[in-house]
Amino acid sequence: MSNLPHCETLLLNLDAGMLHITLNRPDSRNAMSLAMVTELRAVLEGLHADPSVRAIVLRGAGGHFCAGGDIKDMAGARAAGGDAYRSLNRAFGSLLEEAQNTPQVLIAVLEGAVLGGGFGLACVSDIAICQQDAKFGLPETTLGILPAQIAPFVVRRIGLTQTRRLALTAARFNGSEAERLGLVHFSEPSSEAVDARLQQLISQVRLCAPGANAQTKALLLAAESEALGPLLDRAAEQFAAAVTGAEGVEGTMAFMQKRAPKWAQ
Amino acid sequence: MSNLPHCETLLLNLDAGMLHITLNRPDSRNAMSLAMVTELRAVLEGLHADPSVRAIVLRGAGGHFCAGGDIKDMAGARAAGGDAYRSLNRAFGSLLEEAQNTPQVLIAVLEGAVLGGGFGLACVSDIAICQQDAKFGLPETTLGILPAQIAPFVVRRIGLTQTRRLALTAARFNGSEAERLGLVHFSEPSSEAVDARLQQLISQVRLCAPGANAQTKALLLAAESEALGPLLDRAAEQFAAAVTGAEGVEGTMAFMQKRAPKWAQ
Amino acid sequence: MSNLPHCETLLLNLDAGMLHITLNRPDSRNAMSLAMVTELRAVLEGLHADPSVRAIVLRGAGGHFCAGGDIKDMAGARAAGGDAYRSLNRAFGSLLEEAQNTPQVLIAVLEGAVLGGGFGLACVSDIAICQQDAKFGLPETTLGILPAQIAPFVVRRIGLTQTRRLALTAARFNGSEAERLGLVHFSEPSSEAVDARLQQLISQVRLCAPGANAQTKALLLAAESEALGPLLDRAAEQFAAAVTGAEGVEGTMAFMQKRAPKWAQ
Repeated sequence: MSNLPHCETLLLNLDAGMLHITLNRPDSRNAMSLAMVTELRAVLEGLHADPSVRAIVLRGAGGHFCAGGDIKDMAGARAAGGDAYRSLNRAFGSLLEEAQNTPQVLIAVLEGAVLGGGFGLACVSDIAICQQDAKFGLPETTLGILPAQIAPFVVRRIGLTQTRRLALTAARFNGSEAERLGLVHFSEPSSEAVDARLQQLISQVRLCAPGANAQTKALLLAAESEALGPLLDRAAEQFAAAVTGAEGVEGTMAFMQKRAPKWAQ
Repeated sequence: MSNLPHCETLLLNLDAGMLHITLNRPDSRNAMSLAMVTELRAVLEGLHADPSVRAIVLRGAGGHFCAGGDIKDMAGARAAGGDAYRSLNRAFGSLLEEAQNTPQVLIAVLEGAVLGGGFGLACVSDIAICQQDAKFGLPETTLGILPAQIAPFVVRRIGLTQTRRLALTAARFNGSEAERLGLVHFSEPSSEAVDARLQQLISQVRLCAPGANAQTKALLLAAESEALGPLLDRAAEQFAAAVTGAEGVEGTMAFMQKRAPKWAQ
Repeated sequence: MSNLPHCETLLLNLDAGMLHITLNRPDSRNAMSLAMVTELRAVLEGLHADPSVRAIVLRGAGGHFCAGGDIKDMAGARAAGGDAYRSLNRAFGSLLEEAQNTPQVLIAVLEGAVLGGGFGLACVSDIAICQQDAKFGLPETTLGILPAQIAPFVVRRIGLTQTRRLALTAARFNGSEAERLGLVHFSEPSSEAVDARLQQLISQVRLCAPGANAQTKALLLAAESEALGPLLDRAAEQFAAAVTGAEGVEGTMAFMQKRAPKWAQ
């Protein structure tokens, strides 16, 4: 993480291979400003080729995850006119694409408002933990606008059937319902329980080889769009490379020697 | 709704921007006849460019939604020979495609028999409410025939894993199970509770801008088949047009003025 | 089943049109050896054009379904070097593809270890029944290797959202959780309850026409990758052929005569 950029809108804390990113605009419930989008994208780009970071924990400061888009940026785009809205919107979609494809395990910790753009960010995490009283929703169409960049990621996350109801009614719902819908993996009754769950998951991720996890994640994402036969051909090549590579040799040796592999220590 | 066609098999009632369509062949548990398919398609076509209608509520007369295909039409096709079965079947698939893509929010209210073709219709709704004692199932293969036009919509609705079990065992199940499988969004204990849920959902839909909802629905449906990058590019253009359009201006102004937008009144 | 091959690693028992296949390497918890992969593929190939077999029941001997890949084969591949790992791995993927597409209804009965490759096999069944205390998991990345051939089938089975968590944490879970995730259709408290459920499902499958079931299964699998319009066109042709074919004629006649069709006797 030598290339970690300076950030105005994010708190960054690297702890034993886990990068904790905190959205830090609590006065606006961490509304997603263009500055925040730009900084998040820069951080993720710096991580892309950095195997020393194995997981990213993304959360919000001040009791909220993210309440959606930033009003001031919208006003600025109106003043700028022309293409400004389009590029502002598309930049957020690029952030979602990049976060979806980050080689690290992306863990989202969701409290308070998880609305609009915040909902979208939750949808690209590998693991999502929320507090039961978190508030989820897609309010866009009540404002006469569209969950434009978010919608495709919600469909991939929870399927078309639930997404169409949520997007076309702007329904609000809590963490228990988010777990039932498959939006999050764990809904916890308190902030202490959220933290305990996070620690458990970080421990589990530590048992998994970083390179194997990154390649597996890429395979899973490819499985949704790539044809099965060629994907399996490629996967077999990756399997052969992994089993004869450093992680595969260490992992199988550690297993036979009944010890923890290096990456789990 | 100036172009609303005359119907023999449907009851139509337009109430404050909500079109209530009742399948009205109660003697045959609203079995889907070719006449009914043709009339439903004509009604949907008339609605396609009519923004004054914001939602469609589809239900059946006489305590059943729809028990499947019509036996008499099948006999007629046998007499006609040749291509008659094929075109009869494909017409129902076209109805499902058109109902899936209608710009209005499509709400299905499901009671009694929801079998075969009725099951298929339920699968293209944006929101489905059922009574707990409704009877769902795909009985086709027990008759030596196929849920041919229905199958792809069931897979999109509840996924391959549950669909294969249901279609290959012809299992019957009730509303609670339909909710668990994600086929319906709400399973209610009584017809009063169904109606109360329907009113709640209509109220929620009224809060959403009609044009924004129609565009959002189209984006969600596209998300299942279109490549992500181009879809997000297009969505950004739609976002810019929406935010500077009449609904976007009214919606954000109403939000700042702490009043309901025009469409919610 | 005149072409049933001789097997070293499998027990085969044909009972009234139901082929029971038992993975029979209990000393290694039915670990998936290359010999077992080869034999399973040969059995499935022999079944492909055999309409006399209507369902396959796949389970493991000795209280386990399948604990994953075989260590000795891996060692052998290491000795062989070069392409051996790749082709060993790809052969298992071919087995999964072929099992997914078998025209018979494939029922998996899951007890004990359902890990790695065993997990993958469970994911291509049409119906999965497990015992509540079964142990599911994808441990690959803890060994520094990849669930390479398995991953795409898990995504198709339970969706990307749950798969990414399971694969990137190597979490173990039991049968109740497997049911909640939609990996299995039924989780039962005892081996007696598993057997009762199996009998019930076999009875249901018997009510369904074999040819109609095989064609329906192929349609469902195609629905995930084929474009909707052409698929519905093809499905309408298959419908017309089915309704005028032997099964369709017998099925509708039996229905009108209020008797069981021939295939259900």
